[in-house]
Amino acid sequence: MAQGKVCLAYSGGLDTSVILAWLLDQGYEVVAFMANVGQEEDFEAAKAKALKIGATKFVCVDVREEFVEKILFPAVQCNAVYEDVYLLGTSLARPVIAKAQIDVAEQEGCFAVAHGCTGKGNDQIRFELAFYALKPDIQCITPWRLPEFFEKFAGRKDLLDYAALKGIPVTQTKAKPWSTDENQAHISYEAGILEDPNTTPPKDMWKLIVDPMDAPDQPQDLTIDFQKGLPVKLSYKCNKTGKDVSVTSPLDVFLAASSLGRANGVGRIDIVENRYINLKSRGCYEQAPLTILRKAHVDLEGLTLDKEVRHLRDQFVTTTYSNLLYNGSYFSPECEFVRAMIPPSQKSVNGTVRLRLYKGNVIILGRYSETENLYDATESSMDELTGFLPTDTTGFIAIQSIRIKKYGQAKKDKGEKLTL
Amino acid sequence: MAQGKVCLAYSGGLDTSVILAWLLDQGYEVVAFMANVGQEEDFEAAKAKALKIGATKFVCVDVREEFVEKILFPAVQCNAVYEDVYLLGTSLARPVIAKAQIDVAEQEGCFAVAHGCTGKGNDQIRFELAFYALKPDIQCITPWRLPEFFEKFAGRKDLLDYAALKGIPVTQTKAKPWSTDENQAHISYEAGILEDPNTTPPKDMWKLIVDPMDAPDQPQDLTIDFQKGLPVKLSYKCNKTGKDVSVTSPLDVFLAASSLGRANGVGRIDIVENRYINLKSRGCYEQAPLTILRKAHVDLEGLTLDKEVRHLRDQFVTTTYSNLLYNGSYFSPECEFVRAMIPPSQKSVNGTVRLRLYKGNVIILGRYSETENLYDATESSMDELTGFLPTDTTGFIAIQSIRIKKYGQAKKDKGEKLTL
Amino acid sequence: MAQGKVCLAYSGGLDTSVILAWLLDQGYEVVAFMANVGQEEDFEAAKAKALKIGATKFVCVDVREEFVEKILFPAVQCNAVYEDVYLLGTSLARPVIAKAQIDVAEQEGCFAVAHGCTGKGNDQIRFELAFYALKPDIQCITPWRLPEFFEKFAGRKDLLDYAALKGIPVTQTKAKPWSTDENQAHISYEAGILEDPNTTPPKDMWKLIVDPMDAPDQPQDLTIDFQKGLPVKLSYKCNKTGKDVSVTSPLDVFLAASSLGRANGVGRIDIVENRYINLKSRGCYEQAPLTILRKAHVDLEGLTLDKEVRHLRDQFVTTTYSNLLYNGSYFSPECEFVRAMIPPSQKSVNGTVRLRLYKGNVIILGRYSETENLYDATESSMDELTGFLPTDTTGFIAIQSIRIKKYGQAKKDKGEKLTL
Amino acid sequence: MAQGKVCLAYSGGLDTSVILAWLLDQGYEVVAFMANVGQEEDFEAAKAKALKIGATKFVCVDVREEFVEKILFPAVQCNAVYEDVYLLGTSLARPVIAKAQIDVAEQEGCFAVAHGCTGKGNDQIRFELAFYALKPDIQCITPWRLPEFFEKFAGRKDLLDYAALKGIPVTQTKAKPWSTDENQAHISYEAGILEDPNTTPPKDMWKLIVDPMDAPDQPQDLTIDFQKGLPVKLSYKCNKTGKDVSVTSPLDVFLAASSLGRANGVGRIDIVENRYINLKSRGCYEQAPLTILRKAHVDLEGLTLDKEVRHLRDQFVTTTYSNLLYNGSYFSPECEFVRAMIPPSQKSVNGTVRLRLYKGNVIILGRYSETENLYDATESSMDELTGFLPTDTTGFIAIQSIRIKKYGQAKKDKGEKLTL
Repeated sequence: MAQGKVCLAYSGGLDTSVILAWLLDQGYEVVAFMANVGQEEDFEAAKAKALKIGATKFVCVDVREEFVEKILFPAVQCNAVYEDVYLLGTSLARPVIAKAQIDVAEQEGCFAVAHGCTGKGNDQIRFELAFYALKPDIQCITPWRLPEFFEKFAGRKDLLDYAALKGIPVTQTKAKPWSTDENQAHISYEAGILEDPNTTPPKDMWKLIVDPMDAPDQPQDLTIDFQKGLPVKLSYKCNKTGKDVSVTSPLDVFLAASSLGRANGVGRIDIVENRYINLKSRGCYEQAPLTILRKAHVDLEGLTLDKEVRHLRDQFVTTTYSNLLYNGSYFSPECEFVRAMIPPSQKSVNGTVRLRLYKGNVIILGRYSETENLYDATESSMDELTGFLPTDTTGFIAIQSIRIKKYGQAKKDKGEKLTL
Repeated sequence: MAQGKVCLAYSGGLDTSVILAWLLDQGYEVVAFMANVGQEEDFEAAKAKALKIGATKFVCVDVREEFVEKILFPAVQCNAVYEDVYLLGTSLARPVIAKAQIDVAEQEGCFAVAHGCTGKGNDQIRFELAFYALKPDIQCITPWRLPEFFEKFAGRKDLLDYAALKGIPVTQTKAKPWSTDENQAHISYEAGILEDPNTTPPKDMWKLIVDPMDAPDQPQDLTIDFQKGLPVKLSYKCNKTGKDVSVTSPLDVFLAASSLGRANGVGRIDIVENRYINLKSRGCYEQAPLTILRKAHVDLEGLTLDKEVRHLRDQFVTTTYSNLLYNGSYFSPECEFVRAMIPPSQKSVNGTVRLRLYKGNVIILGRYSETENLYDATESSMDELTGFLPTDTTGFIAIQSIRIKKYGQAKKDKGEKLTL
Repeated sequence: MAQGKVCLAYSGGLDTSVILAWLLDQGYEVVAFMANVGQEEDFEAAKAKALKIGATKFVCVDVREEFVEKILFPAVQCNAVYEDVYLLGTSLARPVIAKAQIDVAEQEGCFAVAHGCTGKGNDQIRFELAFYALKPDIQCITPWRLPEFFEKFAGRKDLLDYAALKGIPVTQTKAKPWSTDENQAHISYEAGILEDPNTTPPKDMWKLIVDPMDAPDQPQDLTIDFQKGLPVKLSYKCNKTGKDVSVTSPLDVFLAASSLGRANGVGRIDIVENRYINLKSRGCYEQAPLTILRKAHVDLEGLTLDKEVRHLRDQFVTTTYSNLLYNGSYFSPECEFVRAMIPPSQKSVNGTVRLRLYKGNVIILGRYSETENLYDATESSMDELTGFLPTDTTGFIAIQSIRIKKYGQAKKDKGEKLTL
Repeated sequence: MAQGKVCLAYSGGLDTSVILAWLLDQGYEVVAFMANVGQEEDFEAAKAKALKIGATKFVCVDVREEFVEKILFPAVQCNAVYEDVYLLGTSLARPVIAKAQIDVAEQEGCFAVAHGCTGKGNDQIRFELAFYALKPDIQCITPWRLPEFFEKFAGRKDLLDYAALKGIPVTQTKAKPWSTDENQAHISYEAGILEDPNTTPPKDMWKLIVDPMDAPDQPQDLTIDFQKGLPVKLSYKCNKTGKDVSVTSPLDVFLAASSLGRANGVGRIDIVENRYINLKSRGCYEQAPLTILRKAHVDLEGLTLDKEVRHLRDQFVTTTYSNLLYNGSYFSPECEFVRAMIPPSQKSVNGTVRLRLYKGNVIILGRYSETENLYDATESSMDELTGFLPTDTTGFIAIQSIRIKKYGQAKKDKGEKLTL
């Protein structure tokens, strides 16, 4: 194989199967790579298919644990969210997958990596920026941006014809009129009929989360413990079995939040978002576990995090980190910098949040901390005069009003009237 | 009345009734002032009571329309929110009330204003900073921060005794174990039993919004039109009557959002928040109309607002404006400055959002705009090659990766390994 | 001319002369365009040369006044600066030039514009983004990014050979070992020997500003009046003639600041900056007028601008506007948005600053305002007890220290010691 | 001494001598405390005076080294500056002094600390917030905010009379018509005749830095090495002795920068600044060492710091940290948080800057780094085609212009014209 070895991100679907065959046609040897990020997938079938098409090797890496520990939980720690609603499920998976793919490429002696992302999306950027950071001399083969490929495969029919020619098995199920991407944090739906932003997604599109209208009538209560902003325990009494359940490993906590949320209709969203590439795009997402964990975390910060730290973190870290992740800059100097601010902000985020899930709602029932003392019921109480004197507030207001009186007076002096 | 006239913010309750009598005792003449901000209130009874106690005059100002037009709708325009969840219902009412009170004070020739706020809360600051901006030479009489008052009235019993002495009628209903503040945007609950942040509010506390568990099984759909980010029409088919309803005046739109939201369990929250005065405080809020309008507005911005404008606005205006309002700085140079940024950010926020309310959920069904063209389904489509060439993205990534490759190479050169 | 008409940004130099001839070779008709932005230039010679080479027409547009009024003065108003030292002289000229070029292109019926910028710099982006905003359907011909051009002209010798072939006159003066860009705000030097960031620029490189070591021993005092943050008058007694000089038109004020600054060694800088295109670049700049005007403006804001407005503006507007200009985004939704914040921040910036120029120094001698009252010597005086009571500060500190005491106590409780 | 022991910040001047005597009068035992922060001071005379007045003990703590290492150098690392020009000389000293004073208070068994700051300045806040963080249960005695003190000592004559009464020696030198505060980083001048912001400070006010007009005609070159953003070596050839000098300890580097700067007229400023307490205040400062070190550091960041890290750090850390220090919040949760971001931003700031000092100017001569590779002359060169293809930039611009073209088109569609 004079052309050398390529590590292809393989999904088992039509596109990457055709790409696999096409790479072989170009004279490359191909190592098919998959990452197990918690998606529902028949890995064995994918392996068989890749090998049948001609891959030298099929490597599937299970990254579910490090995905939770290194990426998803830090996102919870800083309340990451893009454009108010999207919890970044796809973006968060990319650095883990890219890291695993580069590791495989290095282990297998590949000079290049390849992927099947389109030329209009965010994912191509997320993957390639990560590849270049992790291995600056790696080559990226991106068929959907190569004229010799995208001109040859202008439509689905071209892909099917080529698949037939190459003996690539094609599942008989009719293609869904949208595309999806799934991992343990979420599933995304976009393209196809969803491209009209006024089209309500059909009820049968949603796959992971039960429709709130079909969710159980009985609410599900649960309790989440945090240490330094990280979820360390999730406990609940199972509505069906009546048994008390309690999990503590990061992956177990994440999956428990996921299954409870999915069963109770929590975490569906529909958004028109701004892609990095300066296009707007409509996406629907099912993001049960992050919805629950983020809401609990935000709530606990109310009780345990200093006001100014929180406001500075909100304005700077949350926004910046979320945008960097969305834009595929996880492995970048600026993301390393911003990420370094998360732990210093979370030292005091220790405590417990009690929640109720009910037909799509995540309801806070209460929260407490045994170690943090920023909240002091007596001191805050309107009925008590401890901690400071009411007259102190008079001085506080007097100082604050120095500028304000000048402002009012200047308006008066200039004949302007302050209005609402 | 040698001491001059005072304009007292009067609520009709025990505290401000005692303050009224006490002010008279001090030799002041008192004008009792109330603002109608849409709260449920027997204004006539309050008037009778104030006059009976000895107020020279009772003035109630209806500010409901300007509250919506000047304050609530601009808050929707910039997605105002404090600490992720609180939609600022109380804070938003303060500037309108303060403005009306100063107007009354000026009309009635009062040298001072008085209020019954405690010395530990935010409201005293919000009122007084507004007073001083609107009328820098106004005097503020704040009994709960005056030792001669707060030492005399150390407990509820002292207030009751004084009321009895002064013939102030006291309602026989037992005081609720929390305090509330209501206006058309929301009701707040705090203090009393709520001071333990782990106490779940009792079901019968919630007053305005139906419990999601008791909300109708039939979802309620509605449609909201925006122009320049302002809600200009709200339409729905009434589930009960089957009739199409459509309202367009700001107050009507706001009240329709309110009644639909309240009926469908939308807008309850529970939070431990950071007061301006550097205390933490637990509050529960029912904020139906702002919940719906804000969510619809955020969604429409996805479709119609430029990406960079949105991100700059999110990081700067939303956060800053919300904090300024929370801290009572509506009438301040900095708030005037930040407020001036709202209209320039909203020029293109024109369009329609379709929503569904269901047992506490606000679900986006779709959105469209007839005038804005930032979203282009064809261009965004993964299946189309219009607008720009896939090869353009290659160049984009190449430029973005210059820094990234240097970053990876520098790590390699220093023997460091990039990890998750 | 089957290929249509192209409007070429023509400088009269070797590169754009070759480009002009090459465009003609490609079958285009060419309109040669120049903008007078205050650079030292023989416009007539350039015209003659362009026409001799074969341009259909030569159009020079004098944009000096609008450059000052629309671009340079607003930059002064918001204290624009890039990476702490660069006052954006080149960046600021680009929108004015691009606008004039598109106007000429439209007037002359050109389907395309062309420029001679290299493919590694900022200017190509600044021009092209402006072109596309001003006329979304314009075509851009960018020879230095076209393989058929840059491969043909791989070195200076290729350009000279082609010039000889085409009879393009070449000035005999030896090329300087750096390149420059000049307008009335500044001159830049980069490339060539400057590419080694440790090479001190030779004394004879600097062209506009006298070496501080050669500047007059006698200081030059001047006075600048501002209204709403805009310089409206510049006055000084001329050291040479002894006469009082006073100018008021924007262009005259700008040019007076320029000539006084240049004569007194004010405004040279040397920087390694970050280009938009993710490369670092070393540049030297002579930026006399902006140095003086910005410093005076910053000083007057100290006296006349509210604290909070200033801090918000500093953190948000100054930084963002500067970066947007540097990155060529003057004509963009976000720059329009940010620009709209400048006037609301400058309402009170009215007054006068007295300055001294001396061998490179700009020294503040004093400042005053007849209309603004934010500074109150009596009130600020340590010797006076007016305005507020010292005891007010006690209350202010008490409130501020609530959080701080909790912080110290929490450290103590956890056995941690606060250290420097 | 029934009243207990107080640790008084003692300066040796009239005010704190009177306070010392007055505290004794109130029945307190007094430990007089001084910090050596590098000010010019006769510590022995102060000790003798304090003991003569009646202090139980005099303790002077030398904090010069930790002041440089823990406070001044981190300020250089993040380019700290307040309102564009003030390098925070006074603010930076406060945490070190407060820490030393609390240490002495604890060692000496004092229940309270006292200071002589006025009730209108920043320093009272800086000291007291630091005291409360370091020892939440400390008492603060602040005579200038106690009516029983400030009413008794309403003018300077009252102080002198009391001094005479108590036998406190008063230096015969006439009081200067301004007040000063000095440490090794700077000296401040404020109050008195400086309260008119239009009064040019008299030539004989300036004490530490030679007038640029009197500075040597021969420039002074020097070289500063940085590691992780910290100055680690300063080298120069002494103009007078002709000898090469090189210092490496933090204090020596700082003092060398100081003496070279002072001798060459570097670092005088004059500003109207915004005090924390919402008053404006005019101050003049001589800040030679920070001026030089900050300028060198900023320059080196140009060469060695990633663009995005720098811009994020500039917008967030520099501004926030500077304001927190100015406002006396060094010991606070938010400052601890922000301070934690400095080291992660400085990993790559390794290299050397060559500078020239000349009559007030700090001129960059060049810079280099032997370890960092972010700058690549070849790659940046306009004459080279390495690193990336010119055609890549075409793609970059195409992607960037997607939004921009939409913007221009939307304007056109709405009949608006883009103008400057």
